[in-house]
Amino acid sequence: MTAELFQHQFPNGLVLLAEPMPDVQSAAFSFLIPAGAAFEPADRPGAAAMVGEWIIRGAGDRDSRSLLSVLDELGVAHSEGAQTVHTSVSAAALGKNLLPALGIFADVVRRPTLDEQEVEPIRALCLQSLRSLEDDPGSKALTELRRRHFADPWGRSAIGTVEGVTAATPDDLRAHFRRAYRPDGAILGVAGAFDWKAVKDEVARLFGDWEPGAPTEIVERPSGPSRSHIEQETQQTQIALAFPTVPVSHPDYYRARAAAAILGGYTSARLFTEVREKRGLCYSVFASYEAFRDRAAVVCYAGTAPDRAQQTLDVTLEEIRRLVSGGVNQEELDMMRAGLKSALIMQQESSMSRSGSLASDWYHLGRVRPLDEVAAALDALTPEEVGDFASGFDLDAMTILTLGPEPLQLG
Amino acid sequence: MTAELFQHQFPNGLVLLAEPMPDVQSAAFSFLIPAGAAFEPADRPGAAAMVGEWIIRGAGDRDSRSLLSVLDELGVAHSEGAQTVHTSVSAAALGKNLLPALGIFADVVRRPTLDEQEVEPIRALCLQSLRSLEDDPGSKALTELRRRHFADPWGRSAIGTVEGVTAATPDDLRAHFRRAYRPDGAILGVAGAFDWKAVKDEVARLFGDWEPGAPTEIVERPSGPSRSHIEQETQQTQIALAFPTVPVSHPDYYRARAAAAILGGYTSARLFTEVREKRGLCYSVFASYEAFRDRAAVVCYAGTAPDRAQQTLDVTLEEIRRLVSGGVNQEELDMMRAGLKSALIMQQESSMSRSGSLASDWYHLGRVRPLDEVAAALDALTPEEVGDFASGFDLDAMTILTLGPEPLQLG
Repeated sequence: MTAELFQHQFPNGLVLLAEPMPDVQSAAFSFLIPAGAAFEPADRPGAAAMVGEWIIRGAGDRDSRSLLSVLDELGVAHSEGAQTVHTSVSAAALGKNLLPALGIFADVVRRPTLDEQEVEPIRALCLQSLRSLEDDPGSKALTELRRRHFADPWGRSAIGTVEGVTAATPDDLRAHFRRAYRPDGAILGVAGAFDWKAVKDEVARLFGDWEPGAPTEIVERPSGPSRSHIEQETQQTQIALAFPTVPVSHPDYYRARAAAAILGGYTSARLFTEVREKRGLCYSVFASYEAFRDRAAVVCYAGTAPDRAQQTLDVTLEEIRRLVSGGVNQEELDMMRAGLKSALIMQQESSMSRSGSLASDWYHLGRVRPLDEVAAALDALTPEEVGDFASGFDLDAMTILTLGPEPLQLG
Repeated sequence: MTAELFQHQFPNGLVLLAEPMPDVQSAAFSFLIPAGAAFEPADRPGAAAMVGEWIIRGAGDRDSRSLLSVLDELGVAHSEGAQTVHTSVSAAALGKNLLPALGIFADVVRRPTLDEQEVEPIRALCLQSLRSLEDDPGSKALTELRRRHFADPWGRSAIGTVEGVTAATPDDLRAHFRRAYRPDGAILGVAGAFDWKAVKDEVARLFGDWEPGAPTEIVERPSGPSRSHIEQETQQTQIALAFPTVPVSHPDYYRARAAAAILGGYTSARLFTEVREKRGLCYSVFASYEAFRDRAAVVCYAGTAPDRAQQTLDVTLEEIRRLVSGGVNQEELDMMRAGLKSALIMQQESSMSRSGSLASDWYHLGRVRPLDEVAAALDALTPEEVGDFASGFDLDAMTILTLGPEPLQLG
C-alpha cells in the first residue's frame, strides 16, 4: 500500500515531493505558494485573488492568450487561485507533458507580465465573483462563519471584499506579488508517471535560482462575534457553526478526525441520521474537519426552510452535546474507519489527488505520511479514546452563524 | 490504451459491462435503471426522485439505518438518485467489497421496503431540495432552460415541482416503482479490481430472475417558449441558451463535440476568451454538449452583473454566429483534441469514471467505444469538417432563458 517517495529541499527553501505511480499514464502536480489572503494587506482584501488571476494573463515571453493556448495544446487540465494561506497551481496531463507544463508555470509564478491593462478586467471579474457569492447563500454562510471563528488572517476568504477589490491599485498588487511569491514556504507535490531524476533536474533549473523573500510576520487579530445572524431574503435558512479542535500535527489528530466523521462525515453519521433521515429537516447537512498548521475546527452546516431552521439548529446542537457527553460506540468507529480507509486507497489511485496530499501533508507536518501509517493509526483507535477526546471539545468557544429571513434562538 | 472488456446481456434485458483495471485496488459500478423523471406521470413531477429516495430507506431484511450502516461498514462511497432518463446508483469500494455492495443494491432496486412512514420525511426533503434551487439561480436557469428547450419529457428535471411533490401519494410512488424499476433497459457498468466470472455469476444470481416490465410508451409533448425571462431579485443575471445538434450515435458526433468545445469547452476557448478574459464580463461562462439517445444540444451558460448582462448575451450570440459562419482553425482543433484526449486517459485511470462511461456508452450507442476508437476519430477530424458541420447549426431553433431582476433584449 505504501509507495516510493522522493523528496528534496532546495537551498532557497522550495520543497519538492514526488511519488511515482507506475501504473498510470498521467502525471499531476500541486504547487502551494504562501501567497494567499493571509498575506495580503489587511486593507486590501481580495488582492491575493487578483494577483492569482493576473499572473496567468501572460508570463515569460507569452501573452495571456498564448499562455492558455499552449496549456490547451499540451492537454493540461489546470486550475490556479488564491486560498486563505496559499496560492495554489494544480495541473494534470499525460506524463510526457509534465516537464513542459512545469516550465510554463515557472514563468507564471516567477515571471508574470503583470500588464496594467489587465487590471480592470480582473477587478470586474473579482467583483462578479463577490456578487455571485450573494446568490449562493450556503457558501456565503460558511465564508462568513470562518471569518468570525478563526482569528484574522486565518478566517479570511480569498474572495475579499467589494471595498478591497475596488481599492486595489496595480502597485498594491505588484507589492503583494513581490512580497509573497517566494520559494521559502513553497511546496511542489508531483505524482504519477515521471522520472525522478528528470523532474528534480528540471525543477532545479526552473526554480533553483529563485530568491527567498524577506521574513514576514503575521499579526493575528481577534475576530468574532461568536453569534450572528445575516438577514437576507433567501428561501432557505443557512446554519453554520464551528468549534475548535486539534490540528493535523497533534498526537490526538486521528481522534479529532474520527469524532468529526462520526458526527457528520458519512451517510449514516449522526447528523445525517437525526436531522435528515429521521426528521426530514433538511436536504444537506454535514460536519467536517478543517485545519491550518496550528489550529483546526469542526465545522457543521445545514440549509433548511425557515420554519424548520430552529429545530434543525436545536437537533444539531443536541447531537454535538451528545458527542461530548455520551461517547461513541465500536460500530460507529468501524464505519468511520472503513470510509476513511477506502477513501485513502481511492485517493492513491488518482495522480491529481495524490499530488495534492503530498503538498498538504508537508504543509501540516513537514513530512509526508505514508498511507500505511495513516491506516495503522486509524486501526489503533478505540471508542474510549475517541469518546474521551470528544468530551474535551470546548463548546463555549463555538461560533454560530445563521443567514436567512429571520434570526434563530442560538441556544 | 484499449483495455479488455467483458459484456453480457441477460435474457431479461439487463446489460452487464465490465472492464478490469489490473493496477487498482478499487472497484466501482454505475447502475442505470430507466426509472427517471421521463417515466413518471406528467401530473406527478418529482415522483421519480421521491421513489429514488424511498428505495434506499430499507430493503431486503434491513431497515433504513442498517442499510446505510452496512454500506458504511464496507467503506462503500455511493450515491443514488433520479435523473431525467435514469435512476442511477453508483458506488465505489475496495475490490473485495464489490460483490457485497452489489448484493445490497440488488435489494435496494428489487426489494425495497417502501415503508409508508418514510413518505412524509421524503416529501419534506424533496420540498427542501426545490427550495434550495430557488437559492441557486445558476442551476435554476439551466433547469428551466432544459424544460423549455427539449420536448417533454426530455426537458424534465428530476427535482420536480412543488405541486407534484406535494400531491404524490404512497400509491403513486409505488406505481412508479412497479412500472419503472425493471431489468429491460437497465445497464450495469463495472470497472476496477474484480474477477469477471465471479461478477457475472453474482449478477446472474442477484438479477437473473428479475422480471421484465410491460412495454411503455413515451408521449412527447412540445415545450417552449423559446424566449423567456424569469424575474427574480438576484445579484447576478443568469443567461442560459441551447440549440440542437446531433446525438452520440450520429456519424457527425465528433464534429459536434469539437464545435461545442471550441465554442466554450476549454480555458482558451472562444467564449472564455471573448467574454471572460478580454472583457471581464463574467466569472463563469461555458458551452457544453448534452445528449439523450436520440437528440442533443449545445448548451451555453453565463452569470453576470445585471448591468453587464446585455453585453454578455450579445457577445455570446455573436460568438455562436461566428462559429456558424466563420469556421474553425487548426490550432483550435488541436487544442480541443489535446484536451479531450488527456481527459479520456485520465478518466480511464479512475474506476468510478470508467464504470460510468461504460454504462453511458451503452445507453447512447448500444455498445462500448474502445478508447482507441475515440482517439482515432478525434485524430481524423479536420478544421474544414468541423467548420462545415457548425455552419449547419439551426440557430432558429435556439432557446434562450434569462433570470434576474430585469429582462434583456434577446436578439
